[in-house]
Amino acid sequence: MSLLTSHDVLAAADRIHHLIARTPLLSSPAADEVFGRQVVVKAENLQLTGSFKARGALNAVAALSPAARGKGIVGASSGNHAQALALAARHFGAPATVVIPDDAPTTKVEGVRALGARIVTYDRASGRRDQIVHRLSREQGLSVVPSADSHPVIAGAGTAAWEMLRERPDLVAILVPVGGGGLAAGTCLAASHRTPAVSVIGVEPETADDTRRSLTTGRRVRIPAPVTIADGLGHTQPGALTFDVLHRLISDIVTVPEELIAGAMAFLWRHYRAAAEPSGAVAFAGLMAAADRLPPGPVGVILSGGNVDWTRYRTLLDTAMTRKDNPAHAPAAALLH
Amino acid sequence: MSLLTSHDVLAAADRIHHLIARTPLLSSPAADEVFGRQVVVKAENLQLTGSFKARGALNAVAALSPAARGKGIVGASSGNHAQALALAARHFGAPATVVIPDDAPTTKVEGVRALGARIVTYDRASGRRDQIVHRLSREQGLSVVPSADSHPVIAGAGTAAWEMLRERPDLVAILVPVGGGGLAAGTCLAASHRTPAVSVIGVEPETADDTRRSLTTGRRVRIPAPVTIADGLGHTQPGALTFDVLHRLISDIVTVPEELIAGAMAFLWRHYRAAAEPSGAVAFAGLMAAADRLPPGPVGVILSGGNVDWTRYRTLLDTAMTRKDNPAHAPAAALLH
Repeated sequence: MSLLTSHDVLAAADRIHHLIARTPLLSSPAADEVFGRQVVVKAENLQLTGSFKARGALNAVAALSPAARGKGIVGASSGNHAQALALAARHFGAPATVVIPDDAPTTKVEGVRALGARIVTYDRASGRRDQIVHRLSREQGLSVVPSADSHPVIAGAGTAAWEMLRERPDLVAILVPVGGGGLAAGTCLAASHRTPAVSVIGVEPETADDTRRSLTTGRRVRIPAPVTIADGLGHTQPGALTFDVLHRLISDIVTVPEELIAGAMAFLWRHYRAAAEPSGAVAFAGLMAAADRLPPGPVGVILSGGNVDWTRYRTLLDTAMTRKDNPAHAPAAALLH
Repeated sequence: MSLLTSHDVLAAADRIHHLIARTPLLSSPAADEVFGRQVVVKAENLQLTGSFKARGALNAVAALSPAARGKGIVGASSGNHAQALALAARHFGAPATVVIPDDAPTTKVEGVRALGARIVTYDRASGRRDQIVHRLSREQGLSVVPSADSHPVIAGAGTAAWEMLRERPDLVAILVPVGGGGLAAGTCLAASHRTPAVSVIGVEPETADDTRRSLTTGRRVRIPAPVTIADGLGHTQPGALTFDVLHRLISDIVTVPEELIAGAMAFLWRHYRAAAEPSGAVAFAGLMAAADRLPPGPVGVILSGGNVDWTRYRTLLDTAMTRKDNPAHAPAAALLH
């Protein structure tokens, strides 16, 4: 398969734009004052199925032959890709099977079931989800749609940044969470269409820094199954295709501690009125951690998803709101909102 | 002054469109399934200052002479109009004084202060805010910008519905909260531009039903200071101008109990990922209460604001989420999101 370029993202945007929600770019005068620059947030929590994953799944299933769709599709996910797959399968009339860890948030599992997909659960610590997917594919003739490491999935994910840059061509940098790397790789491709290229900063939880380690050493490093509140980013190794793109194109990687992820969720609620799941707030946490490392000018942050149970959301925000050192407690002069 | 018409809303839209946020229309497949129709939500919680009030205040201050602006403006508000006034004054370089009840939410008071306005507080139960405003106006030569009962404020507020109807001309009805009546009256004017007119359903808390009573009896009824969690809708009497418009144009009024307002906040969080303050969720509560009284077809709901302190928000959602009869707990088949 040929090297992915920004044209693959453009082609994906043409293919799926009528199937997805055109999510808004949120702004906040308070946040702009806190960071001393304009900070716009691409609200993919308002995307169909509540995360950016609908983009890649729809683009991937659209690329399958009618015969392959008829046999069905299969994929593995902590939840958001599962919902996206179920949606894409339903849209194209294909049966879907999704492989989900047994500790996935109820909100995500309910969403998958409601969309009519078959659910197979596994123990996350075992790390055996890929084996399960490939067995199902082999035995039942199902087409595998990976959550990240696939050309059409990466190109589809890149359409979020593509939309951002069409609306705000003046952005100097985009911050994006890094899990499997599909969104980050797609964002790099979209950003590379500009001259000079817009900087792309990948953000990982400190405990799930497989991509940072891999980029540092120049090869794909595997880490033990990480523990992080960002349940969508608990990957152990970058994908081969995503690593190839990130290695070529990403500007920088920032890692963030767990409490800053909760702090970013609180900041997003308070100043952007946006409900983010932990993984969805990781890129904003990266902005909080590394704002002074960015080039001057307006920046965009991808809020990648909003699928979180209320009890978990409330607990994380409660903790963050009571921390005195939390940046969500901006100086009074900044609270324009 | 001449009778207000839809043309005043159109003129306001032309005047302020470059000063305000173009707020998104949110949609939710889960909500559509619950209600058996498309339900789109105009997210004015994402408007500048966190509520629709920025529209009317900007339109009103824009209409003042430079000399009047130079002397300054004054207005009274439970909080959202105060922030809007402070923003509009700052934009046009006018000093602002705002009269706020001493129990207004901290979020709102902080917002006003951060925008540089002078704050005067009063005891809400005394009901003397209008006297205070008029004394300040008389003694200091300030121009009064009412929170609702003013032609430019009503016309400005109507631009939210105007935007909705431009984006979704197929809507058959719009639900709107009724406090002072400015948003409801402006919405009626915007809706009257269509042939046949789009239905406008006003929604009030059961305990703050001054407009329902007034429309029933055909004259402006005054009620005792109401107790409701919807702090922005605790009015005692409709305005003269707003009542005139509502009496002519509104299709229906629905009242909602307090627990349904909290239920609507929970539903909006869960299915639209939208943070609404209690007053901001009242129109959606009206949809929950009266969906079967609406004409068939897609409907729009105005989520009028999102300024609420976290502790209050969390407490209300906790209560709503644990109520088994709450419509936020939609049947599993409807949880597509």
